Amino acid sequence: MATSATHLLKDELDIVIPTIRNLDFLEMWRPFFEPYHLIIVQDGDPSKIIKVPDGFDYELYNRNDINKILGPKASCISFKDSACRCFGYMVSKKKYIFTIDDDCFVAKDPSGKEVNALAQHIKNLLCPSTPNFFNTLYDPFREGADFVRGYPFSLREGVPTAVSHGLWMNIPDYDAPTQLVKPLERNTRYVDAVLTIPKGTLFPMCGMNLAFDRDLIGPAMYFGLMGDGQPIGRYDDMWAGWCIKVICDHMGLGVKTGLPYIWHSKASNPFVNLKKEYHGIFWQEEIIPFFQAATLSKDCTTIQKCYIELSKQVKEKLGKIDPYFVKLSDAMVTWIEAWDELNPAKDSGKK
Amino acid sequence: MATSATHLLKDELDIVIPTIRNLDFLEMWRPFFEPYHLIIVQDGDPSKIIKVPDGFDYELYNRNDINKILGPKASCISFKDSACRCFGYMVSKKKYIFTIDDDCFVAKDPSGKEVNALAQHIKNLLCPSTPNFFNTLYDPFREGADFVRGYPFSLREGVPTAVSHGLWMNIPDYDAPTQLVKPLERNTRYVDAVLTIPKGTLFPMCGMNLAFDRDLIGPAMYFGLMGDGQPIGRYDDMWAGWCIKVICDHMGLGVKTGLPYIWHSKASNPFVNLKKEYHGIFWQEEIIPFFQAATLSKDCTTIQKCYIELSKQVKEKLGKIDPYFVKLSDAMVTWIEAWDELNPAKDSGKK
Repeated sequence: MATSATHLLKDELDIVIPTIRNLDFLEMWRPFFEPYHLIIVQDGDPSKIIKVPDGFDYELYNRNDINKILGPKASCISFKDSACRCFGYMVSKKKYIFTIDDDCFVAKDPSGKEVNALAQHIKNLLCPSTPNFFNTLYDPFREGADFVRGYPFSLREGVPTAVSHGLWMNIPDYDAPTQLVKPLERNTRYVDAVLTIPKGTLFPMCGMNLAFDRDLIGPAMYFGLMGDGQPIGRYDDMWAGWCIKVICDHMGLGVKTGLPYIWHSKASNPFVNLKKEYHGIFWQEEIIPFFQAATLSKDCTTIQKCYIELSKQVKEKLGKIDPYFVKLSDAMVTWIEAWDELNPAKDSGKK
Repeated sequence: MATSATHLLKDELDIVIPTIRNLDFLEMWRPFFEPYHLIIVQDGDPSKIIKVPDGFDYELYNRNDINKILGPKASCISFKDSACRCFGYMVSKKKYIFTIDDDCFVAKDPSGKEVNALAQHIKNLLCPSTPNFFNTLYDPFREGADFVRGYPFSLREGVPTAVSHGLWMNIPDYDAPTQLVKPLERNTRYVDAVLTIPKGTLFPMCGMNLAFDRDLIGPAMYFGLMGDGQPIGRYDDMWAGWCIKVICDHMGLGVKTGLPYIWHSKASNPFVNLKKEYHGIFWQEEIIPFFQAATLSKDCTTIQKCYIELSKQVKEKLGKIDPYFVKLSDAMVTWIEAWDELNPAKDSGKK
């Protein structure tokens, strides 16, 4: 474990950034990110040069690199969609991943202090979660808080935290219909809380400001088939969120949401978004009940085994909705094969 | 529905206060409570005179009154324990109840403004809950918030809110062991959020600062057998919380927690509390799994029917732990009989 309070885990964490533009936004993050290694996944035209501010330590992969590294298995990595970021999770060799979008700036807390989002994610990941019973004073492991009266003592050890889901000031993460209806809505409420999503409850996981323990849950953090050549976009992180939650519940792992906030600078175009989301708006009405009811067998003792079993259920149950889900199910298997190829042996989650 | 923004629902809500002392604390609440009707349940020595500040409209019941009104059924109402407050729920004729302890003062929000706890509870009760899917920006019905991307549209109507659970600044609601270990811990964090406890998740419900819709859930708000002549205390609100949550989940009703805060002025004696809680600390390890697994049959179409079915399961499954639970199960039935006697006909939850 790292010793510096400000740059905790600096040798054990990679920052994954999907992008199509110069990474000027990193200037603002310099005090917080500079000691960490960056994995930049360049989406779109591979001939374009992405400029990274001086002083940052990074590796960059464009589509040509992805194709070269994965060969035919590159088919599981989306193109022209931020879903491509999950390639970064796969090539990382670190225990922890933090992923952030390039339109996410540093937020300020109510006292005006700049929020070190990465430090808060690390705090969230390093202390346990409490999915089996709700604590009304939120995260009981936070300074000044604890378990309240009536919280069973046998559950107070909690479970390891696999995922830390951060939130957004300014532009909220709304779908296209909500964006269209409320074009001026901004999130100005800073809620000073971290909480565990209870076992058995699904949530909409946003990939904009997200951290996870790669050893614990990495192989399930697949962002699906989106964008170029696919009937859908903007459901990459949702897909991953449904899958990881079912698997975390099965494996006894925790998912936290709340702090840290980033400042989301740019609303995406709601008309473009509506096109991308269109099928998803219908499909999610069937997908969510599927995931709510999904159970994994006792044999699923690793993340890989869980994920393969889930892929079979996706094919069987969601394949009826649209042939897309058959393709997605196959891609889930390809993803695991590619993951295992790039991450042989020693992985704690290895099958 | 009431028209005044400041004294919403003033003819449809009773404030229930259990006490053993003069109610000087009401002075502080005067601007918020004065237009409402109070039901004071006097615990302990019935010959003691409880002074209520001038200008408040109230009815007061001591033990003699309870015995007179309920006759032999008064056995279901606890004595020498704040569990006696549930008698107030039963004699009320209003749609909404707010209950508060007499050591709860007015809290201030981070801007220094006094918090009208009652107004916030009413807000919580009048807008829907979202138990079927988690919204990461908390209460989507609050001003400036909404459902986030990926929230299924079919679930955005929400469900009626039955219970609003408020929190506490200053003295947190800790159990005796935690009080003993952390005598100086104070809650100073004002978390500006209201959220729905997801379906299938239990929580520790505290009766200090609590509101509910009597028509929707009243008959399940029984605070059990505690205090005088019982092997246990300080589990009255926990008991009610477990029961109402299982029943709300079955009936498709919502439970919210978070705002409003009150300022909890007085830590109770941890040694006395340990004596009261002692058995509960062991018992809750079996009670909570029981409630987590409890399901109600399709025939349970009213709160009364749900509660009677739950009482049978309590006798059958928890009776093995201690004869106390057989007695409690019988008291649950008596409570419903007494409720129906005092609340004949027209009750929307009537069996």
